[in-house]
Amino acid sequence: MRAGVFDSGVGGLTVVKSILEEKLFDEIIYYGDTARVPYGPKDKNTIISYSLEALEFFKNFDIDMLIIACNSVSAYAIDELQKNTTIPVIGVIESGVLALKSSTDDKNSDILVIGTSATINSNLYDAHLRQLGYENIVSIPTPLFVPMVEEGIFDGALIEEAMKLYFKDVKKTDRVILGCTHFPLIENEISRFLNGTKTIHSGDAIVQLLKTRYDLKPVADTKISFFASSNPDNLKNVAKKWLNL
Amino acid sequence: MRAGVFDSGVGGLTVVKSILEEKLFDEIIYYGDTARVPYGPKDKNTIISYSLEALEFFKNFDIDMLIIACNSVSAYAIDELQKNTTIPVIGVIESGVLALKSSTDDKNSDILVIGTSATINSNLYDAHLRQLGYENIVSIPTPLFVPMVEEGIFDGALIEEAMKLYFKDVKKTDRVILGCTHFPLIENEISRFLNGTKTIHSGDAIVQLLKTRYDLKPVADTKISFFASSNPDNLKNVAKKWLNL
Repeated sequence: MRAGVFDSGVGGLTVVKSILEEKLFDEIIYYGDTARVPYGPKDKNTIISYSLEALEFFKNFDIDMLIIACNSVSAYAIDELQKNTTIPVIGVIESGVLALKSSTDDKNSDILVIGTSATINSNLYDAHLRQLGYENIVSIPTPLFVPMVEEGIFDGALIEEAMKLYFKDVKKTDRVILGCTHFPLIENEISRFLNGTKTIHSGDAIVQLLKTRYDLKPVADTKISFFASSNPDNLKNVAKKWLNL
Repeated sequence: MRAGVFDSGVGGLTVVKSILEEKLFDEIIYYGDTARVPYGPKDKNTIISYSLEALEFFKNFDIDMLIIACNSVSAYAIDELQKNTTIPVIGVIESGVLALKSSTDDKNSDILVIGTSATINSNLYDAHLRQLGYENIVSIPTPLFVPMVEEGIFDGALIEEAMKLYFKDVKKTDRVILGCTHFPLIENEISRFLNGTKTIHSGDAIVQLLKTRYDLKPVADTKISFFASSNPDNLKNVAKKWLNL
């Protein structure tokens, strides 16, 4: 099986990391649209149009499945992508919500959703969770975590001060959904700050969906290739660091 | 006199603020290419192409002068812009370097240049300063200041921790060039942290150039209009806050 993984930038590499650890595919093709990152502030039609261009790119590789490791694309372009291909297209929002559900059935759980301003303002995690009956949902935009992680800052005073700022009104929380693919890199810090709250992580959520819905089993080894619409060397450097390649 | 002010996003508003305070124009047209911000990570040809599109936009307004309130455009597209128009095109790098020169003639001054990674990696402030004979120049990328300022964080623990990180090896400095149009909003913090070091600020530098080279005198009042390639309401909201409109 060959999977395409699409993100607007480098964040989706955390999803690749989870998939690689489970060896669910013979081959992974990662494509980051680094020339046009970030997608968050762009409008829905632009995000759809860029996503369809990415789909065209993946047609070069005869992939069996397309994994959307980007919250903005997952929010706005999954349906349009699925209309334009016969292979399954799965995204981080759907998988994150399902992972939350399998993590706790208690509809009164206090659920915290964090992400970029664009993801939080789209309100999609909240809407999907409420459809499933969850009622106590607090969503907080935590945008500064993104440039910090991209600068290689995974802990220390800056992360701590940002958490103090963002989480100052959080009293009790049972689960925190990391609604941004950059955040798994500071997952332990976030969990510790929130008194050990269990985190829901896009990479693990995608793995869970792949194993349950598509019944994927581990293979011997996964080959991986990286492509970027701009500055591919930077993508490869980040991949080396984040994936320990 | 009518001026166009061009930036890739909202940062150039700090330059507008300085010009407004001095009332040097009857009218200012601000255009932020917010659909395609940031320019920093984009290549030179892309920046030139986007800048020429902005020049076309300004042709609707019959401006007398084009002010480039963006370090990436100032670094890579000033010459190409000037080739395509008869009005003067002035940028923040040239004006910043001239303002430094008028601030200190001592070629042994310790000069610190800070900016985004793209601006610092372009090495242009350093090159221009060395051409003028300055020798003790240290350049440090301080990219996290940009998203902090865009989130409205102008002081406090986050700015303090970022300064501790970025300035940890700075021993003595006589002048600090704020090589990013976002930084005037945290100018006092930076100066205080660096033991009261004098700052060179793109807005003040542009004003100085306008007064000396073009002999502009104050007018009764300045009319200002804002345009953005995406989300103009956000630009107007930031303008209200930063310019106290």
